Amino acid sequence: MSSSLLRLIRLLSGGFSNQTQAYENPPLFAHILVHFRPLPQLEAGSLLLEQSYAIDPMVPYRIRVLRPRISDGQIIIDNQSIKDPQRFWGSVHDAERRALIKPSDLLPLPGCSYVVKEKSEGFSGEVEPGCRCLVERKGTTAYLVSSFEINDSMMWTIDRGHDPQTHEQRWGALAGPFEFQRTTDYSAEIPASWSDHFQSEVTTQL
Amino acid sequence: MSSSLLRLIRLLSGGFSNQTQAYENPPLFAHILVHFRPLPQLEAGSLLLEQSYAIDPMVPYRIRVLRPRISDGQIIIDNQSIKDPQRFWGSVHDAERRALIKPSDLLPLPGCSYVVKEKSEGFSGEVEPGCRCLVERKGTTAYLVSSFEINDSMMWTIDRGHDPQTHEQRWGALAGPFEFQRTTDYSAEIPASWSDHFQSEVTTQL
Repeated sequence: MSSSLLRLIRLLSGGFSNQTQAYENPPLFAHILVHFRPLPQLEAGSLLLEQSYAIDPMVPYRIRVLRPRISDGQIIIDNQSIKDPQRFWGSVHDAERRALIKPSDLLPLPGCSYVVKEKSEGFSGEVEPGCRCLVERKGTTAYLVSSFEINDSMMWTIDRGHDPQTHEQRWGALAGPFEFQRTTDYSAEIPASWSDHFQSEVTTQL
Repeated sequence: MSSSLLRLIRLLSGGFSNQTQAYENPPLFAHILVHFRPLPQLEAGSLLLEQSYAIDPMVPYRIRVLRPRISDGQIIIDNQSIKDPQRFWGSVHDAERRALIKPSDLLPLPGCSYVVKEKSEGFSGEVEPGCRCLVERKGTTAYLVSSFEINDSMMWTIDRGHDPQTHEQRWGALAGPFEFQRTTDYSAEIPASWSDHFQSEVTTQL
């Protein structure tokens, strides 16, 4: 399992762009950038996530700290928001500011972990069951139904909001998944200590 | 009718952006720019249309010459494409190149005219009935179902592609209409001769 976890962290540690999809389907898909970048000062596996419109990469519409881990023999990605997130907007491109993110800046997002499955070519994941990952958009609350797939070269994501009472879809992804090409590889920034950490975790579990 | 036509041409002659919508609904709406700009060298009423992703305003994904006119007492907007359109990409922002567009550059788009209704606050229009406005996307053909509304400050558009056989929706606008704010007013560029033209047309029709 620990080698799977490291493989997932390596695959995620990159920059992704759906430029091809946006240009092949105007005007149906916004051109979006997604970056996941290791945060070596935090718990092993912690990755800063920023998602932005390509036109405004320093003003992400979503900034999170994700942490893949093993729980009961399954890969889970914990999802955390950041207090006063504007302090860290764009820090995925700015090592100095990124290094300032500390454990006390993180806020857990209960119900918003991803449950991940390994596949031959990569991984797929979706938000844990329970309809508990609540998100607000324009004053109304929906629960998030979100999934992704990732391999060496591509990533696909779908986000949808559903009504907590009726379970009807409220917004999102009706034109199909976002389809991203990998544009940057940050896996060389994964600290060696993380490999050691995950190896020793396995030993402890035996 | 001629005063309605001039009112429509004035309302259309502008620049429009859905930035607010894109930023309120990330990542569901691409940030899009739409410009309609008078082409005084062409038939009265001719407007150059360019639609582009905001990130790439000089590479429109759609460039057309529209011409509002009166037909059988109804306002129609004729829709024309341009031969070798790349010559004129971005010319909505470049008076010199724009002035080079000549009648022989235009290609009629049969079945793709808009039928327009005047309302107290502006106009609404939709592609003429008949399912004849065929568009290709990724090698498959669909017919366009497109509508718009426009007033002094805003414009809304919906584009959808439907299967010519089954009439099922194939692509487009599932998240709702694009919602544009007016950002530029080009109505001062409407030549005085167009008013004279439409006035005399009315006189002829009486």
